Amino acid sequence: MYNATVIIKLKKGVLNPEGRTVLRALNHLGYDGVKDAKTFKCVELTLEGDNENEVYNKVDDMCKKLLANPVIHDYEITLKKIE
Amino acid sequence: MYNATVIIKLKKGVLNPEGRTVLRALNHLGYDGVKDAKTFKCVELTLEGDNENEVYNKVDDMCKKLLANPVIHDYEITLKKIE
Amino acid sequence: MYNATVIIKLKKGVLNPEGRTVLRALNHLGYDGVKDAKTFKCVELTLEGDNENEVYNKVDDMCKKLLANPVIHDYEITLKKIE
Amino acid sequence: MYNATVIIKLKKGVLNPEGRTVLRALNHLGYDGVKDAKTFKCVELTLEGDNENEVYNKVDDMCKKLLANPVIHDYEITLKKIE
Repeated sequence: MYNATVIIKLKKGVLNPEGRTVLRALNHLGYDGVKDAKTFKCVELTLEGDNENEVYNKVDDMCKKLLANPVIHDYEITLKKIE
Repeated sequence: MYNATVIIKLKKGVLNPEGRTVLRALNHLGYDGVKDAKTFKCVELTLEGDNENEVYNKVDDMCKKLLANPVIHDYEITLKKIE
Repeated sequence: MYNATVIIKLKKGVLNPEGRTVLRALNHLGYDGVKDAKTFKCVELTLEGDNENEVYNKVDDMCKKLLANPVIHDYEITLKKIE
Repeated sequence: MYNATVIIKLKKGVLNPEGRTVLRALNHLGYDGVKDAKTFKCVELTLEGDNENEVYNKVDDMCKKLLANPVIHDYEITLKKIE
């Protein structure tokens, strides 16, 4: 079994209105030291598999088919073997 | 300067409809090996500061005041010193 | 065929950190006239069916099983008959 | 005072992975009659103002500056006068 964490970020150059909102709100609260804020989404999967490469390819496939929009998103996959 | 990554998850026991939706959709696509899926939100901040403890406390404060709802969310803060 | 719009809001009394963030950010930008901000999620479905009551009950069922978390969310369903 | 509801949708042609996920999950649960699903975000603002045109322009401005990303989003504003 594996835990797969998929981080889905907007590509560089794609405006992130939610991040901009967070930045402005933090500055407004007096946290002037905050210079940038970005938000992104994560999905954590628990999935069967013994072979790390195979599991990686399967999750990569899920990202392309369902979890991300390749035009606006980049994604990163991290795997951790569990019992 | 620091990069702070804040991961905001629903507390254990709080249903995550989005994760459930992802799980069902992946199973439907034929990925039967996926046994669980959870979604959560991340915020990445770039902020001034020299002292790791101080920066941590500041970010912890931002979570309580703005970024998370303590009744339904747990959050984790990771700091990385940058130039 | 019907279009069903499902609006999924946090229940009264459940803090909405995202809405709070939006409010603070707008105030920070100088929009002082904004007194409250709430965010919520919508799902728009296109689905087969002839009988409005049946379609409504089906969508209500989907909300309970998948789209909403009844502990923290309220939801509203609006139907519109289409060709 | 006005209530302003802002609906923020992905532009036509921009893939909506979350909607696709919802569609697959509903089909998987046996709701075969669901032919399409789209998700979008809403912000509900309470704001001061007497003149509907002025309020509309102000909210339109907020969308451009903060709430939406004009490259990938369309938005609609609905106003309702309140006490």
